[in-house]
Amino acid sequence: MQVTKLRIARLWIEDRFSKRDIFALFIFVLLIGFSSLLCAQSASAFQSVDPMIGTGPEGHTFPGATVPFGMVQLSPDTQIRPFKQSYKWAAGYRYEDTTILGFSHTHFSGAGHSDLGDFLIQPISGDVKLEPGEIDAPGSGYRSRFHHETEKAEPGYYAVTLDDYAVRAELTATTRTGVHRYTFPAGKPAHLLLDMRSSIYNYTGKVLWSSLRLRADGTVTGMRETRGWAPARQLYFAMRFSQPLTGHELYDREPLPQEYKGFATPGTSPADTQAIAGRGLIGVFDFGELKQPLVVKVAISPVSEDNAIANLNAEVPGFDFDAVRADARRAWEKELSVLDIKTDPAMRKSLYTALYHALMAPSVAMDTDGSYRGPDYQVHKAEGFNFVSTFSLWDTYRAEQPLMTLLEPPDRTRDVVRSLLVSQKESPFDILPIWQFQGLETWCMIGYHAVPEIADAFMKNIRGFDANEALDAMVASATYAPYGHLGEYMKLGYVPVDNDG
Amino acid sequence: MQVTKLRIARLWIEDRFSKRDIFALFIFVLLIGFSSLLCAQSASAFQSVDPMIGTGPEGHTFPGATVPFGMVQLSPDTQIRPFKQSYKWAAGYRYEDTTILGFSHTHFSGAGHSDLGDFLIQPISGDVKLEPGEIDAPGSGYRSRFHHETEKAEPGYYAVTLDDYAVRAELTATTRTGVHRYTFPAGKPAHLLLDMRSSIYNYTGKVLWSSLRLRADGTVTGMRETRGWAPARQLYFAMRFSQPLTGHELYDREPLPQEYKGFATPGTSPADTQAIAGRGLIGVFDFGELKQPLVVKVAISPVSEDNAIANLNAEVPGFDFDAVRADARRAWEKELSVLDIKTDPAMRKSLYTALYHALMAPSVAMDTDGSYRGPDYQVHKAEGFNFVSTFSLWDTYRAEQPLMTLLEPPDRTRDVVRSLLVSQKESPFDILPIWQFQGLETWCMIGYHAVPEIADAFMKNIRGFDANEALDAMVASATYAPYGHLGEYMKLGYVPVDNDG
Repeated sequence: MQVTKLRIARLWIEDRFSKRDIFALFIFVLLIGFSSLLCAQSASAFQSVDPMIGTGPEGHTFPGATVPFGMVQLSPDTQIRPFKQSYKWAAGYRYEDTTILGFSHTHFSGAGHSDLGDFLIQPISGDVKLEPGEIDAPGSGYRSRFHHETEKAEPGYYAVTLDDYAVRAELTATTRTGVHRYTFPAGKPAHLLLDMRSSIYNYTGKVLWSSLRLRADGTVTGMRETRGWAPARQLYFAMRFSQPLTGHELYDREPLPQEYKGFATPGTSPADTQAIAGRGLIGVFDFGELKQPLVVKVAISPVSEDNAIANLNAEVPGFDFDAVRADARRAWEKELSVLDIKTDPAMRKSLYTALYHALMAPSVAMDTDGSYRGPDYQVHKAEGFNFVSTFSLWDTYRAEQPLMTLLEPPDRTRDVVRSLLVSQKESPFDILPIWQFQGLETWCMIGYHAVPEIADAFMKNIRGFDANEALDAMVASATYAPYGHLGEYMKLGYVPVDNDG
Repeated sequence: MQVTKLRIARLWIEDRFSKRDIFALFIFVLLIGFSSLLCAQSASAFQSVDPMIGTGPEGHTFPGATVPFGMVQLSPDTQIRPFKQSYKWAAGYRYEDTTILGFSHTHFSGAGHSDLGDFLIQPISGDVKLEPGEIDAPGSGYRSRFHHETEKAEPGYYAVTLDDYAVRAELTATTRTGVHRYTFPAGKPAHLLLDMRSSIYNYTGKVLWSSLRLRADGTVTGMRETRGWAPARQLYFAMRFSQPLTGHELYDREPLPQEYKGFATPGTSPADTQAIAGRGLIGVFDFGELKQPLVVKVAISPVSEDNAIANLNAEVPGFDFDAVRADARRAWEKELSVLDIKTDPAMRKSLYTALYHALMAPSVAMDTDGSYRGPDYQVHKAEGFNFVSTFSLWDTYRAEQPLMTLLEPPDRTRDVVRSLLVSQKESPFDILPIWQFQGLETWCMIGYHAVPEIADAFMKNIRGFDANEALDAMVASATYAPYGHLGEYMKLGYVPVDNDG
C-alpha cells in the first residue's frame, strides 16, 4: 500500500505534528512504499469497491445508492420483521434473502441498533397488492422475488430485476434526492406503491402520524413521524415522476383501534382522495402502459414539505437518471482517491470498500438552505458550515474520525465539530451528542465520545470553531451529573455497580 | 338601545348602501333613539358583561380571561370526562360543577364539538397528587373544591379560591400569553402542576407526542401534538415564574403499552430529569414557602418553542399582573364601545355579554413575527395582515361575520378574508376553510360558508385582498367534486340521499 496524498504531506510539511508523530509517519510511509513494490497496477479505486460486502452475516451494510455523506441512502429492503426479530435487518437488506419489498430512502451502514427505511417505494406491473405478503407465497403481496445475478451494485448506483413484475429497477442519488428508474414490461399497467408504514425496526404504532398529498402540479408530498430509535422523528419528502399519472389511490390502513376518529376528509374512495393523514398510509400511483422507463425522484427533508420540494428543485431539476448517476460516480471517484492503495486485488477490494463505508457518515442532515432539526426538535439554520449527523460516536472516536482528520479536508472535520457544538447548545440537556442521527438524540450506549473527537481535531490544528466554546461544551458533557451516573462518579470516584446494569 | 358609532355613520355617509338600506337604517335609528328615552344611565359596557352567562346548560362558554380575539383563552376546567361523555364540557367549565382541575390556556366559546384545553396548570399547596382524583373524594387527586362566591369574572380577568389548597387564583391575558397570579397560604410549600395529558374531548391516546423541558435560565418549554378535532395539532408553550424554583419533577405516565421504548434519557429520578418526551407527561414545579404571590406567564405558539419564547418576551416582559389586567380591560372597553346600548340592565347585560362572546373568534392564530401553521401543517408567514382562525363558518356566515363588517374596522374583515384566502392556497384540497382552528381544518359540518363571508365583505366595499384571487378561491370551493358530494350535485343537480347520512 502506498499513501501519497498531498493533504497528509501538507500536514507533515507544516510541522503540525510532534517529532514522534513525524518519525512514526516516516516509518509508515517507508513501509507502505516497500509493500507497493510487490504489487502490480490494478482496477481503479471506484471499481474496487464492492457494496455487497457486509450485506451478509452481521455486517449490516446496504448495497444501495448514495453519494459520499449523503442524506439519502437509497437501498432495497428485503425483510421487515417484528421489532424483536429485526436485528439482522438493521440495514434493510440481507444477501441471503430472496425477495425485495421495495426501495427506501434512508439506511444506516454498519449499525447494530437501527431505524430508518423511510418512504418505501415498490414498482408494480399489473395488479397491486397493498400488503407485503409472504416470502413463501409468491403473489401473496407486493414483495417480489429477485436473483443476485441481476444485481449490479457500485458506489452511487444499484440495479436489480424484480422477477414477479419483470421490472428492471435502477437507483442513484444526490445528497438529498433519491432517483429511481424503473423499466416496466410491455402490456401491463405500471404502478408505484408507496408504503408509509414500512420501517426498519418496525412495530405496531411506530408511526405516530403521517400524511400524504398529491398536489395539483403532480408533485407528491408527505411526512411521517416515527417513534423509533430517535423518538418522534419527523421526515418529509417530495416526489415527482417523469411520466404523467393516469390515476392514484390513497389508503389509510391504521393498525390501531382508536376511540375518536374526527370528521372525514373530502373524497369517498381512495381514487378521489387528494390528501390523507393517519397512521397507516399507502399511496398507489398509476401510469398505465409505459413505452419508456419511469424516472422517479424523491427528495427528503427533516424540516418541511416545502424544504423537500426546494431540495428536489435544487439537486435534480430534470429527469436525467444517467447524469445523476455520472455525478454520483464522479463524487465517489474523487472521495476514494484520497488513498492510493497498491496491494493484491482482494485486499484492495476490502480496503476500498471499507473506505467507501467510512465515507457514508456522519451524513448531511440539513436542507439546501441550511435548515435542520436539532436535538431540541426545533428548526435551526447552519450558518457557515454543513450540519451533519449520524454520530455513532462510541464507534468512531478511536479510529474513524481520527482517520478522517487525515484523509478529508479540514473543512469536513470542522463541519463535524461545529455540528457537535451547535447540538450541545440545542440539547435540552446542554450536553454533546451521544448517538445522534438526523439531528436527534437516541441516548444509545455510554460515555461522551464527542469529547475526544473535538480534542483530536483541535490538537491536529483543525480550526473554524470557537475553542473556548468547545472546551465549555466538553466540560459540560463530562460533568453533567444526571448522565451515565456522572454525579456519583464525581462524588465517589466510582459508579456503584448496583445502580446500573 | 341607541347605536351612534362613527363607523356605521361613515358607512352610511359614504353611501355604500342602497336606498332601501338607508331607509331601513333610518327607521332603526329612530326606533332605538325612541327606546333610549325610556332608559336611565346605567353601568358601563365593560361592567355589563357577565362572563358567567352561558356556562350553564348548553351555552358552552367559559368564564376565564382573554383579550378580544386572543390566541390564549385561559380558563378553569371543571371536568375532563371520557370522550363520549364530554359534550357538556365543550368549554371546559360548567357552572354546576364543584371542583376545578386547573387552568388551561385554550378554549372554544360556544362550540358544540370541541377540543383544546391545552397546558393545564394547577397551583397546589402541600402534598402533590399526580392524578385528578374523584369529585366525591376530596384529597384523592389534584382537583380542588371551589365556591361561586369566591369567583370574580370580568372581561380579561377571572379569580377563584381553590378551597382544598387555600390558594387564591387570578388569571389575565394578552393576545398570546396567559398570566396567572397565585396567592398561596403561609406555612405550606407551593407547587405548580402542569398536566400535559389533560384535554377537552379527551381519550386515551389523544396525545400523539409531547415534550417538556426545564431550561438553564428557568424557562419551561414544551409542546404537545394531539389527535383531536384537528388531527395531529401541534401547540408549543413557554412558561416563566416570578419566583425561583426550589425543585422540579418530570414524570411520564404513558397510558398505552408500547412494544419499543428506545433508550433512557439522562436522569434516574423525576427530580434530576431536565427534559422528557412521551405521551403522558406531567411536570411539577416547586417553590417552597412563598411570602408573596407567584406570577406565572405562559405564552403559546402553533409553530415552535422558540416562537413561544419570543411571544412571551414581546407581550409580557415582566411579572406585573395588574398591568396586564389593566391592558386587557382597556382592550375590552375599547372593543365593547362599538355599541352604545341603552336599555334595561338585564337586557344590557345580555347584549354586552353576547357582544363580548362575539369578539372572541375568529381568534389570532399567528406568532408575533407573523408565522403560523396553515391547513397543510407547514409553517407560513402572514405578510401585511393578521392570520386568524377558529372559523365556525357555518355558524357565523349569516349574522356574526356580517355584523362584524359593521362593528369592526375594515382591517378586521380584511384579516378574516385574507386568512381564508391563504388557507385556500395552503389547503391540500385547494379549497376554502370549512371549520378551521389554529390554522388546521376539522372538516366539521357541511357547506362552504367561507364563500358568502367573502362575498359579503366584497359587496360592502371592504378591500385589501385580491378580488380575482378571491373569486377563484370561491369557485374552487364551490366546484370541488370530492367535497360534500359536489361532484354528484354538479352532475345530477341533486345529491342522492342514499350516499350520505
